[in-house]
Parts: sequence; C-alpha cells; structure tokens
Amino acid sequence: MESWNRKLRMGMVGGGQGAFIGGVHRMAAALDQQIDFVAGCFSRDFENTEITGKELYIDPNRCYRTYQEMAEKEVQLPENERIDFVSVVTPNASHHAICKAFLEAGIHVVCDKPMTCTVEEAEDLVRLVEETGLVFALTHNYTGHPMVRHARKLFRSGEMGEIRKVIVQYLQDFLAYPHEKEGQKQALWRVDPQQSGLVGTMGDCGTHAENLLQYITGEDISELCADFSTFLPDRELEEDANVLIRLKGGGKGLITVSQIATGEENNLRIKIYASKGAIIWEQENPNYLPLYRYGKPREILTRASGYLSEDAAHATRIPTGHPEGYLEAFANIYVGIVKAIRSHLGGNPMKIDEYDFSTVYDGLRGVQFVTRAAESAKKGSAWIKV
Amino acid sequence: MESWNRKLRMGMVGGGQGAFIGGVHRMAAALDQQIDFVAGCFSRDFENTEITGKELYIDPNRCYRTYQEMAEKEVQLPENERIDFVSVVTPNASHHAICKAFLEAGIHVVCDKPMTCTVEEAEDLVRLVEETGLVFALTHNYTGHPMVRHARKLFRSGEMGEIRKVIVQYLQDFLAYPHEKEGQKQALWRVDPQQSGLVGTMGDCGTHAENLLQYITGEDISELCADFSTFLPDRELEEDANVLIRLKGGGKGLITVSQIATGEENNLRIKIYASKGAIIWEQENPNYLPLYRYGKPREILTRASGYLSEDAAHATRIPTGHPEGYLEAFANIYVGIVKAIRSHLGGNPMKIDEYDFSTVYDGLRGVQFVTRAAESAKKGSAWIKV
Amino acid sequence: MESWNRKLRMGMVGGGQGAFIGGVHRMAAALDQQIDFVAGCFSRDFENTEITGKELYIDPNRCYRTYQEMAEKEVQLPENERIDFVSVVTPNASHHAICKAFLEAGIHVVCDKPMTCTVEEAEDLVRLVEETGLVFALTHNYTGHPMVRHARKLFRSGEMGEIRKVIVQYLQDFLAYPHEKEGQKQALWRVDPQQSGLVGTMGDCGTHAENLLQYITGEDISELCADFSTFLPDRELEEDANVLIRLKGGGKGLITVSQIATGEENNLRIKIYASKGAIIWEQENPNYLPLYRYGKPREILTRASGYLSEDAAHATRIPTGHPEGYLEAFANIYVGIVKAIRSHLGGNPMKIDEYDFSTVYDGLRGVQFVTRAAESAKKGSAWIKV
Amino acid sequence: MESWNRKLRMGMVGGGQGAFIGGVHRMAAALDQQIDFVAGCFSRDFENTEITGKELYIDPNRCYRTYQEMAEKEVQLPENERIDFVSVVTPNASHHAICKAFLEAGIHVVCDKPMTCTVEEAEDLVRLVEETGLVFALTHNYTGHPMVRHARKLFRSGEMGEIRKVIVQYLQDFLAYPHEKEGQKQALWRVDPQQSGLVGTMGDCGTHAENLLQYITGEDISELCADFSTFLPDRELEEDANVLIRLKGGGKGLITVSQIATGEENNLRIKIYASKGAIIWEQENPNYLPLYRYGKPREILTRASGYLSEDAAHATRIPTGHPEGYLEAFANIYVGIVKAIRSHLGGNPMKIDEYDFSTVYDGLRGVQFVTRAAESAKKGSAWIKV
Repeated sequence: MESWNRKLRMGMVGGGQGAFIGGVHRMAAALDQQIDFVAGCFSRDFENTEITGKELYIDPNRCYRTYQEMAEKEVQLPENERIDFVSVVTPNASHHAICKAFLEAGIHVVCDKPMTCTVEEAEDLVRLVEETGLVFALTHNYTGHPMVRHARKLFRSGEMGEIRKVIVQYLQDFLAYPHEKEGQKQALWRVDPQQSGLVGTMGDCGTHAENLLQYITGEDISELCADFSTFLPDRELEEDANVLIRLKGGGKGLITVSQIATGEENNLRIKIYASKGAIIWEQENPNYLPLYRYGKPREILTRASGYLSEDAAHATRIPTGHPEGYLEAFANIYVGIVKAIRSHLGGNPMKIDEYDFSTVYDGLRGVQFVTRAAESAKKGSAWIKV
Repeated sequence: MESWNRKLRMGMVGGGQGAFIGGVHRMAAALDQQIDFVAGCFSRDFENTEITGKELYIDPNRCYRTYQEMAEKEVQLPENERIDFVSVVTPNASHHAICKAFLEAGIHVVCDKPMTCTVEEAEDLVRLVEETGLVFALTHNYTGHPMVRHARKLFRSGEMGEIRKVIVQYLQDFLAYPHEKEGQKQALWRVDPQQSGLVGTMGDCGTHAENLLQYITGEDISELCADFSTFLPDRELEEDANVLIRLKGGGKGLITVSQIATGEENNLRIKIYASKGAIIWEQENPNYLPLYRYGKPREILTRASGYLSEDAAHATRIPTGHPEGYLEAFANIYVGIVKAIRSHLGGNPMKIDEYDFSTVYDGLRGVQFVTRAAESAKKGSAWIKV
Repeated sequence: MESWNRKLRMGMVGGGQGAFIGGVHRMAAALDQQIDFVAGCFSRDFENTEITGKELYIDPNRCYRTYQEMAEKEVQLPENERIDFVSVVTPNASHHAICKAFLEAGIHVVCDKPMTCTVEEAEDLVRLVEETGLVFALTHNYTGHPMVRHARKLFRSGEMGEIRKVIVQYLQDFLAYPHEKEGQKQALWRVDPQQSGLVGTMGDCGTHAENLLQYITGEDISELCADFSTFLPDRELEEDANVLIRLKGGGKGLITVSQIATGEENNLRIKIYASKGAIIWEQENPNYLPLYRYGKPREILTRASGYLSEDAAHATRIPTGHPEGYLEAFANIYVGIVKAIRSHLGGNPMKIDEYDFSTVYDGLRGVQFVTRAAESAKKGSAWIKV
Repeated sequence: MESWNRKLRMGMVGGGQGAFIGGVHRMAAALDQQIDFVAGCFSRDFENTEITGKELYIDPNRCYRTYQEMAEKEVQLPENERIDFVSVVTPNASHHAICKAFLEAGIHVVCDKPMTCTVEEAEDLVRLVEETGLVFALTHNYTGHPMVRHARKLFRSGEMGEIRKVIVQYLQDFLAYPHEKEGQKQALWRVDPQQSGLVGTMGDCGTHAENLLQYITGEDISELCADFSTFLPDRELEEDANVLIRLKGGGKGLITVSQIATGEENNLRIKIYASKGAIIWEQENPNYLPLYRYGKPREILTRASGYLSEDAAHATRIPTGHPEGYLEAFANIYVGIVKAIRSHLGGNPMKIDEYDFSTVYDGLRGVQFVTRAAESAKKGSAWIKV
C-alpha cells in the first residue's frame, strides 16, 4: 500500500464535555471513513479530558494534560502511529498558541474560525505556515456546501457579469437572552473578551459572512463602514453589527450580523446581484440555489443534479432530493484536508491555492475584516480601508 | 339620504396612456363601489387626455387641458356634480403644484408618493393642509395590507417588547437595463432629475421603506448614514442605496434599496426584531405574517383569520386562503379616504391622527428622510440627524 | 359611440346580507370599470333585498321581490336602461330555475358554480343556451389566474408531452367544526341537501378541481372510483372525498377534496406530470408557476413576466412582484363575459368555444363528474365511466 | 470496560461498486463513531468485492466470496474480532436468504427495505427472529428524523384528536426515462421482477409511505383500493400507484407514489388531519414540522428547539438552524441498533417493542401492504382487507 493510501490519524485540542464544535469536527471527520481519531487534549481540565477520551474510545495514553505535552509526545511516537494532524477547536483566544505549537512540532493543523484574535497573531501563523510548508486549514464550513461551490463557479467564470450589489446577513438569537448568567458554557466564552477577543458577534458570524462573500465572488472588500451595537446590560462585546462595504471590483453592499435577532436560528444568507444574473443562498435551506437571469424565468438549482458543475458534484454524497446539511458540508472540508495531507504523504504536496478549503491567508483576511470593522465602529462609522 | 351617504366623485390628474400608477388608483377606487370616477386631466398632452377619457367613459366636458383649468371649472359645477376629491398621479416633480392648486380650490387631495421633491415643498403642503383643513392622503399603499396593520398592532401594543434591530429591503431590477434609452415612459421620468427630483431609487423605494418602518413601529429614524450608487452609464440619480439607521427608541438597523437588483421584482421586506419577538413581512407574499416569539414555535399568521386584530379584520374582504394582493391593499387606502371625506361631508371631520392612511406629515417625514440620506451620501456616509 | 362600446349593466340574484360570493361578484365586476351594477333581487327575504340595495346605492325601483319579477320587469325597461346580464349567486339548488327564467327572458346569464344539482337540470340549461344563443358564463374563477392560463398553453401546445399523472387537491377546514349548529349561513346551506344538492364538498370543491384539471390539460376524465366520508355527527352530505381518476388520453391521477382538513384554508393545488415536464400551481400562491422540465433546473415562472404567453399577459393588470389574487382572477372572468356580451351587442357574437370562461358545457361536465363520483361512492368505490 | 461499552463491529452484504444504499449505510454507521466496519461480501462478483474492500480499508481476509462463507467464517473468529451484526443492502429478492443465513449463524441483522418479496418470506423472518431472539432492524430511515419522532408523539399522545384524513405522497422521476436501457445499475434491478419482486415503485416508495403513516399515527390500514400504472414501454412492474386507504381507527386517506413524476426528486410528504390539529412533514425539508391547530395561528416547529419532545431531542446532534438531513436520520436508525445490540451484549436485551427503529413485524406489514395493493390493482381496484 502506498504511504498515502491509508486512513489518516487525527488528534484534537478542545472539544471536551460542554463544548459544541468539537463534536461537529469529530462527526465531520468520521463521516467518510478516511480518518481515525486517536488522541486528544480535550480540556484544560484533565478530568474532563479523561472522561471525554473514555467516551470516545481514545487510548488513555493518548489523552494529554496539555496541548504542549500532546504535541511533544505525539511526534515521538512511531511514524505509523502518531497523529497526522490536529484539529484545534478551543475558544478563539487560544488558537494562535496551539496552532503554533503543533506547526512547530511538524504536525498539520486544522483550526476552527476565527483564526486568531489579532492581526499580529494571524500574521504570525501565516509566517509559520509559509516556513513549515505544512497544511493549515481553517474550517469555514459553509464553503463546503455543494451549492456554494456551484455559486462560486457561476461568478468566477464570468457567467453572471459584473457584481453590483451584495447583501450578506447572518442572524441568530443565541445571545438575545443572558444565558451566560446561568453559566451556559457556549455563551460564557463568547461574551468574554478574554476568550473571544476584540469582537463578539463579528468573530462568530462576521468572519463567516466575509469569508462566504469572498469565496463565492473572489472579490475582496476594499472599504467598510460599521455600526456596532450592544443591547443587553453587562455585556462588553457587540451583539449586532451593520457594515456597509465596497468591493475592489466596484460593487457595493452590506453585511449585517446579529446574535440578538429574536427567533432567528442560524440564518446565514447571501444575495449577490450582478449585471447578468443573481443568486441567493440560504444556509438553513442549503440544497437549493435560486438563480435569477435577467429577463428569464427564475431557476432553482438543486443539489446533486446532473447539470451542476464538477465542483458541486464532487461535494455531494447522495442523490437529489435526499437533503444534505451542515455536517455533510463540514465533512467536505475534511475531504479537502485529507486530500491535501495525502499529497504531502505522497511526496507531492498541493500548493495552497489548490486547496479547496479556507487557508491561513483567508484566516488573516477575516481577522483584518473584523478588526477594521471594530475600528470603524469606534470612530463613529468612518470608512476604513481593509 | 344623508349628504355623506353616497358615492363620492373622483377626478384624476395624470394617469394617461403609458402611465402605470394612474390605472392602479382607478382600480383601487373602483373595487369597493363607493366612488364614481368622473373627471380628469390625464396628461400634459390633451390628445392623450381625450383618448384616455374616452376609454374610461368620462364625459368629454370633464376632460381638461390643464390641471389648473380642472380645479377652476370643477368647483364651478353644482355641488352634486363636482368632484369630491382629486387623485394626483403624475411624476414627483409636479405633485406640489398640482396638490396646491386643488387644495386652494377647496378640493380634497389624494397624492401618490413621494409627496414632493424638496423639504420646502413638503412643508408648504403641510401648511396648506393645516390652513384648509381638507383631507390630504398620501398613498403609501403597503400600509393598506391587513397583515401590516396587524404587525403595527403587535408593536404598538408593546407585546413585542423593545425594538432592537430592523432590516428593510426594497429590491427591484426595473433599472438594471437602460430602458430609458428605448423610450420606456416609466424609466424615462424616473432617471430624469427634472421629473424625479433629487433622488432616484430612494424616492421610489426608500420612501416606502421608511414609511413602512415608521407605520409599524411608530418609531422615527433619529440618524442615518448612507451610501448611494449609480452603476449604469449616463445616469445621474442613484439606482441603489444602503443606509444605516438609528431609531429614536434606541434600535439600530438598515434600509437597503435597489432598482438594479437583477431578477428582483418588487421585493419589499421588513424584519423587526424586538426583545420579546419579531416579525417578517414580505410584500410579494402579503397574506402571511411570520411571527417569532422568543423560545416558542414560529407562527405564521394568515390574513382573515379570526385571531387577528380588528385593524386587520377591517382591512380584508374575503376569507382566509383566498389571496388578496396589491390592489386590495391599495383599495384599503381609498376606503380610509372615503371615510375621511365623508366625515367632512357629514360635518364632523376626522382629525388627522385618526386617519388610517399616510398623511401630509408622513409625506414630509419621507421627503426629509431621502433628502438627509442624499446629504449623508454626498458627505461620504457621514451620520446625519433626521 | 358604437352600441357595444359602453359600460354594461349588471343585475344580481342572491348576494344579500350574510352571503359571501355575491360581494365577490360585485367587486370582480367593478374592478375594471366596464360594468354598472343597477338591479337586484338579493334575497328571498325582501327586507334583506331592500337593505342590501340601499347599501349598494341601487335604485329602490330596481330592487325586486322575486327573480321572476326581476326578469319580467327588467326586459320591459328601455333598451338603454335594462340590465345586459344577470349574475346568479344563490345556493346551488335554485340555479337552474333562475338561470332558466333569465335566459327565457332574453337576458345573458352569469352563474356561480356548481351549475345545477342534477344532470337533468344541467342538460336543460345546455338546451336553453343552445336555443337562445345567449351568453352563459359559469364562474370557475380559478381559470382566471394568469398562471393557470399559461399552464394551459404549456400543456395544450404539446410542449410538456403526454400527461401521465395528475394530482388535484382542494382542502379546507370550513366544515371541521359544526358551524351550522350556531346558525352560520354559509355552513347552513352547504350541509343541507335541499340547498346544496346531492353532494356536499364535491359540489363546492370537487367541481373546481375537475374544472381546473380539464381547463389546463384539455383532457376529460374517462372513469372514476370514489370514496366519500362524513365525520361529523348529524351531517348527511360528504365532507371529504378521495377519487381515483383515469383520463381519456391515458393519464392517471387522483382528486382529493375536503372541508374537514383541519388548518387548511383554501388549498387548491394541481400537479400535472407529463413526459417532458410538469407544473404545480397553488391557488394560495397564485402569482407563481413552478415548472419542471426533465433533467433541467427547476423554473419558477412569475406573473406578468415578459416571457409568458399572451394568454397570461392579457389576464394581468399590474407588474411582476405586485401580487394579484383571488379577486383579480375573478375579475378576469368578468372581462371575458364583457367581451362576449359586447360581441352580441356589436352584432357579431363570439362562438362558445371562443369564450375564455367556463361554459354551460363545462357546467354539465362538472355536474356529471360529481354525480358519477357519488354513484361510485355508493357502490363501494366501483369504477364508473363519466 | 464492560462488555457492551465498546464500538460494535459491522459487516456488510451488498454495497459494492455501482450500488447506492450500501454507501449510505456505511456513512450512517460511521457518523457517530460507535461502529467499526470490518468485513463484507459486497457483490456476487468477487472482483468487485475485492476492489470495494480495498477502497474501504477492509482486511482482505474478511472480504468474502459469498454471504454464506461470510456468515460461516465470521462466527469462527474470536469473540472480540468477529462482527456483531451484518447490514444487508442487496436488491430486494435476496434479502430473505441472506438475513436467514446470518440469523441462523447467530448474528444480529440490519436489513434494507422492503424486507422481502413475498409475505411468506416475511413470515419466515418473523419466525426466525422470534426463535433466535436476535436484533433485527429494518432501515425505514425516514422514521429517524427528529420531526417525525415529534409528530409521532403529537398523535400518539392524543393531543391532535382523532385522525380523519391522511395524504401520503412519495414522488420521484427516477424511472421517467428508460435508464435501464443504458445499463444504469440502480434502474436495472428496480425494473426487473427477478430482483425487485412482485412490485416496483410500491416496494421502493410505497413501503416507506405505509411505514411512515403507521409510525406516526400508530394506526394500521384496514382496507385499500389500488390503481397501478406502467407508462414506459418494455416495463413489467408498476411505476406509479394511487391507493385509497381506510384506517382501523376510522380515518380515510390515500397514498400516491410514483417514479415517473417528472421533475420530482425524493418528494415524500405526509399530511395528517385530525379533529384538533394537523401536521405536514416533507422529507426534502425535514428540519421543520408545520403544525396546524384548529382556529389558531399556524406553527412551524423547528428541529432542536427546546420546546420539542425528548424523542425529538434524542434524535438530533446539532443546534437549531444547522440543517440535518437524510444521513443524520439514517444514522439515528443505527443509534437505535447500537443501543439494542449493546443491550444484548450487556445481558439484558431490549424487547422488540422498545426498539426505536422498524422491526421484523413492520417489515411484514409493509410486504402485506404492497402485496394486497397489487392484488387490488389486479382486481380492478377492488377494496381488499389488509
């Protein structure tokens, strides 16, 4: 068997009891049966790590007290045992240090978004990835949806014409109630600047919005003008933001995000209007892509249909009408990661611009976006160049 | 028969061949069989007026060459023949002068929106209405929808809590193609500052957006920050605008309008998120009112249901499941107008704040809104107090 | 002015206080301002007629005690005063006699559906219409929708291929509660075989379902097999029916109707699957026509779009995105009626197969359909030829 | 570690290259990381089995030439190596023999639906399951959806009142084109009575429809009356069926299934109208459950909401607004299977009526349903007792 033609071995930092996204990463990694999950440091609390490890059938010898220990010990294991990559699923503030430790140990890294809390940290990771040549993946999972990939094809091919107006909204009501006062773990770290970083909702939702827009259109935001809001008492970080944007290609638009939009669940929606056509994609109904062509009947493209692009076809597992969802899209990110890591194992590493997942550069751009937005908001919604 | 208990007589200025909104006003006025349409000056081109009058079975003696002649001659007719009110459905720039002429002649006025091109003209109409005591109605037709009226009740009663975030979008693609270069009448006047006024899409769509927001919530915009765009060559007026807004009550939000949103038809949608609940209303699907209450199952209220408020019930004609649309809502504005004028005929005129249609004050507020937005856009999206 | 180029004069039988469909006919007739409503016998109770007439501004001299008196006296009026046609909007059981009286008096007739209670009565009206040559219109209002007319074009042109499967559902919950026990007028006559006829829900809903299917496809039902149900105590007529059908052209399908489908409002929906494509049309969302072509992206056609057929274009009043509804479609039936009657006035009467509304033959077919269905149900769901 | 507290070992019969449902079972089994997939006989063609085994990282020693060999050899492996259960994912005609072989070898069995081709085979499996006491699961995957489980709770608790009308449709266009003539494997076996059995679409879709109806309501079909259709030339089995049904509890309804419904993908939809309320559930949009309560606003329940029943909560993995789909529901069936098998390993086996997946009795009922329907269709749609 060729060295690369095998299941990969995954470790995880974060994702202990009470966590959310760690379990998502594990399911996403498991779905396609190309990854064995074998090691972890699931919490700063070792008891949590032990319990979690047991539940997940992880060898107790590979349940570590600290991520540093994990990085150190894993590389000492025989080549056919040690982890191929680590998934970092901790709160934002620790991403930088953990990613750094594993990259420096020579281990490929998968990191949840947002990549870091500051532009400096993000630039440091860029430097490290460039120096080590290792695979670094940022799990902007919404780019894993087949219909998003098809939308990207439509815009990047020029078929839709020049982009004029974009509207990206990402609305939740997760923070409409002060759950942190009842000790809910997911709310606690999100409203705490020590763990979340400089921004609140913009980190959680704003980075996805910016990433999705850039992923589909290939266009960067040139300038922005932001208004941040905090409604509940005793909160420091913004719970809601409205951002006017201008694109490098001349388009205009807005990004509106909220975690106090009562009754909204995970309503990420992007509308892109170009000179020849437009698309609308809604995360909560991801198997469909409404497509408008000027003067023609509206179309609804459906996942797994024969008329879709190869990019979309490669990202789907089951036939039309059998809905895929959040986990399948997330798993597509892992499909790309496996492919990239195998290309290393096989001695012919893919280039970063060949990855079909978000990279360390996308991560940097996201951190820049939310940092500039915070700056604009502080300056009374001044236009700021990104 | 009591003096007020009769069909009212309507005249019209504008609405000749090639016009759009004039025909809408005529259908809206006809639907409930309380109005006879008897006189008009349908165009600056008298031949058009003559042809239009003949098609509409209007007595040729009451088809006038100018609106001045019409105002003058109608008041000279016997009391039981002359028009009770005039509907002004010309391009924006002539609204002020025409309304003024009829108000000064003692005739009640219905005027299409936006009310005027400048704040000064708007203030002049306010003065005239106050002085004459006549009925003046601005046809913000979307406030005629039963579900909009129910939404208003929900917010104004306090049932939804404090308003936090509002998103109003009004998207069309009417100007995505340069129809004016092919001589299309509706496009021609809209892109011509001489006929449209200082603003383009903001006058057409922005005033509806602001009006609907204020109508439902009762909250005024305190400040705004706008970005205007013009994409097609040889156009002077904005075709698209994104406006950040702050409400007097502390809520935040945005208004986004466009007439170059490829594939959009008449997509006016308002979402209002308050501390206890939220509503979404879509003009293209007006018989439904999605209502979210925090932590509860989502509700879809349906027009004509027994559980709706009286305000909604009074604005509906047919049972649930039998869709009403644009014309029925427009006709509800005329129902209110008939009621107000009859209150004059009966000698006990309603007060302006009892009207269930938009008033001269709403018209002034709309003109202020778009004027301030244009000012902000010119100043590089500065925050401007409204 | 040419004799035909004038507003037509309408009378009405039925439609007094407490009635539903009479008001609908009046609004539908008024909308386009081609009809003056001038006479009526609104109820068997003359006081009701008088009150109704006063509310509707009808000359008291033309408010009649009986329909016989109305038919008799109207024809004696001067030609330029008397009604051109009568709209018959009474409960089913009296349709035959009233229509007969007016046809025999030489007056054109508009009749609400179902046409009659028995096949014999229906055949009698066919005979009378053939003998008199008068216009007879049956108000199957759903055929007035622009998207239904476009669907008809799609199937009748052969563009969709051979019809294989049809599913027509018409679901309401109007009778899910025993409203008749509280004296509700609409419920009272519907559950009374003396007023409704042999069938209940099949008359109300089943005839619309059959008519819509035949209108769009042009195909008659060759055989049917029905199961009728009555759930509430003390009811005689069916409240619900499931009918297997076979079409003359070889297609198969089913019609399911109910007035006890809890929570349903007026859910008439038709799906037609043919060898090359399919359509779905929903009465509650009538401005859209989902169109599937085998192997192609799904399309959503929207009312008033430039790509629609002339048949659809002629049946629409306002631009795309400005929803039209039930009343506008109903008014389109009256547009057709006005055209047909004017063709008589102009001396060049249209032929029955040129009408764009349902005819006496459609009425007969509808009565045959429900009668055969009742027969099948009684025989334990035997297949019966229609 | 307790004997049951470990990952279970799965084998598979069927699911080689060109197959569809085998891959689905493997993903469903992998998602929750409770199952190791270790052995298989993927095809009657051993080369296919070898290639498939290699792709799936299966030990070549556990890739078997026949299912008989697999059953025989697996039971000879050490207890901590051999498979705990087998998933049977072959075409229908071989289900009985394969399931029998593994049950007789003492191995738990998971079988895709429909269970068998004949009632006799089904009864034989019932007997075997009763005799062996082994776990037997039929993968009616749609019962794995959280909103289906909540619907079940609503009806079985009596909250919705007595069931009056049910409409189940399952529409595809998978066979609208003669794919079998181009050698497509999925189409080939489905149109071949040797592999599919007595029925076509009724086996594929009809059994799901019946199962879903029974699962939610708990009510059996007492009688049915069916009309089968075959439209494409050279086909023997029905491609479409319309079935009138009567429920033991007095409700009426219909099941309509098709694989020639042009443009339909996997449109399984159930509507259940009861005296106090109704639900609609659509497989293509499975995260939502529209719920109507008589006279109240319509509700849309959303997956993972706090107000749902425990049954629904247990069947969901990720928060509201993060869509789950077909695979997640399928994986829920495997969650139940793992629980049931572990109860055996732990020495305290669950009873069959405690399973939260479809059992051998459900399988028998499904085969009876389609067999009786075929009988009714042959007899010209006679009513047949089930």
